[in-house]
Amino acid sequence: MRIAVDAMGGDKAPEAVIDGVLAALKEVKAEIVLVGDEEKIKPLLKKVPYQPRLPNGGQVSIYHASEVIDMDEPPSFAIRKKKDSSIVKAISLLKSGEVDAVVTAGNTGACVAAATVYLKLIPGIERAALACPFPTSDGVSLLLDVGATVDSSSENLFQFAIMGNIYARKIMGKETPRIGLLNIGEESSKGNQTVKKTYELLKNSNLNFVGNIEGRDIFTGRVDVAICDGFVGNILLKSVEGFAETLEALLKKEIEKGILYKLGALFIKKAYRTFKDKTNYASYGGVPLLGIGGYCVKAHGASSSRAIKNSILVTEKEVRTGVNEEIQNYFESNIV
Amino acid sequence: MRIAVDAMGGDKAPEAVIDGVLAALKEVKAEIVLVGDEEKIKPLLKKVPYQPRLPNGGQVSIYHASEVIDMDEPPSFAIRKKKDSSIVKAISLLKSGEVDAVVTAGNTGACVAAATVYLKLIPGIERAALACPFPTSDGVSLLLDVGATVDSSSENLFQFAIMGNIYARKIMGKETPRIGLLNIGEESSKGNQTVKKTYELLKNSNLNFVGNIEGRDIFTGRVDVAICDGFVGNILLKSVEGFAETLEALLKKEIEKGILYKLGALFIKKAYRTFKDKTNYASYGGVPLLGIGGYCVKAHGASSSRAIKNSILVTEKEVRTGVNEEIQNYFESNIV
Repeated sequence: MRIAVDAMGGDKAPEAVIDGVLAALKEVKAEIVLVGDEEKIKPLLKKVPYQPRLPNGGQVSIYHASEVIDMDEPPSFAIRKKKDSSIVKAISLLKSGEVDAVVTAGNTGACVAAATVYLKLIPGIERAALACPFPTSDGVSLLLDVGATVDSSSENLFQFAIMGNIYARKIMGKETPRIGLLNIGEESSKGNQTVKKTYELLKNSNLNFVGNIEGRDIFTGRVDVAICDGFVGNILLKSVEGFAETLEALLKKEIEKGILYKLGALFIKKAYRTFKDKTNYASYGGVPLLGIGGYCVKAHGASSSRAIKNSILVTEKEVRTGVNEEIQNYFESNIV
Repeated sequence: MRIAVDAMGGDKAPEAVIDGVLAALKEVKAEIVLVGDEEKIKPLLKKVPYQPRLPNGGQVSIYHASEVIDMDEPPSFAIRKKKDSSIVKAISLLKSGEVDAVVTAGNTGACVAAATVYLKLIPGIERAALACPFPTSDGVSLLLDVGATVDSSSENLFQFAIMGNIYARKIMGKETPRIGLLNIGEESSKGNQTVKKTYELLKNSNLNFVGNIEGRDIFTGRVDVAICDGFVGNILLKSVEGFAETLEALLKKEIEKGILYKLGALFIKKAYRTFKDKTNYASYGGVPLLGIGGYCVKAHGASSSRAIKNSILVTEKEVRTGVNEEIQNYFESNIV
């Protein structure tokens, strides 16, 4: 298996990306192709043997890309203009079959746009979805879409549910995943027109549909998969992240106010770390882009080396379990 | 000033409501009319003098209502069927001018529906909005709408911005409130069709519009007022609440694992309380329903007596500062 990693993507690239790759290599049986500026990557790779061009036998190789798409560049324009960017190059390698998957912590919009343009949607699927894992009190739930598709139709949302169901079975190990439709109340009459129609589609499907759920249910462990439009999901994801950061800052501010507080904080430091670990995106690895004809995993823009490592691990699992092929088979054999 | 409080609304009613009312009476110069089941309220009111019927001179009086709308009843149906419910009766008192405002911790949908039916929208305003305060690292921001209006048009969202602007000036003491439009990115090209149109309306207005904001900006203190559709806002609000609960449960679980952790937790208990206080809805009082021809404040369904007390305090401030009248004046003198 060969995984292309966008060495230039993310706030801490290329250092954190390369550290993450080196850590991942100790745990996965995949060859990593670092896509990006050779001059910048080479010095960071001193510790390991590498080969400068594909195809090669080395565990890590570099595939040079001269350009970088910045985090805040307009995606569609950027992927047309910067054909030699690390993300476009990485996805081109996937298209030509030189690698089996792509991991990037770069510009999300550019990743979605390049994947859709170069790899195309799986036949039968109308729109792609980013499926993000969230911590629950006793595990993980998956929310999709968190930003690939805005203005989703009820048919789009229904397809997200089918893809989420397959992903939760293959990757999260849930036999019959509980699917919930994110809404503003539990009754079927709640919500906007699109979710009302989606409710009917899900109710009449053979999915394990538990009905409408509210925002809190993403975290209570009531469902394995929650479905929403990408506009809602993206705002939710970023709100929860921002809220967590503000909570932590406010708690730290209070603890700074007393010597006894500081001492207490020292005592619980390790417990706090474990807790943060369980609630941090870095533990879950990346967010798969589902519905695309190729394995693309989006790591968090602020990814640490650990987040990159875990993104590579989850990507390897996706390829190995063939989740995309199962999605493809489903849409080939079912009229949705 | 006279404020009707729905004595039967909320998970902890009537006990927490009445305790909250008694606490509020020590701080506000308003008469409270408890609307609800006289038989249940009377024993809880032993400590203070009260009068059984309006109009009276007592600081607390009871206005009997024989029915209760449960938290999960379908709103429109419930307000038609249960005309003698505490929430409908309270709003009727406001309509007839016997009270100046209503506070309820009951069924949000029923509150919005009864207010819209009985009190009507302020002329010129097309839809109502619930404006919810959120903690930021250095204060409070206001998000509207959090659930009164789903499927808002760009004109609706623009009107929410105008109302939020007036509310932030009068109640939150911000001279020129910074208004942000909740979106999935900062560029004006981002988002669904409705927010793109809203962006143009806001950009061409004389509001202090800072542009598109992302979910995290609600908590960073970058804006005073954030605008979104009620579907998005409601899901965001409940997600953040559920996330906070899950975080707390997971942190407690970790701390339970070691004796040193437990000791440390004891040391920082007071700091943690202060922190929780700053981030808890109970500190902020209720959520005003803006755009309605009468002061209605929705307290949290899980309101403690403290949340009820603070809801009454903020309601008193709203009536005293005349925020609704200012909104009315604006829409009378401006073609929006």
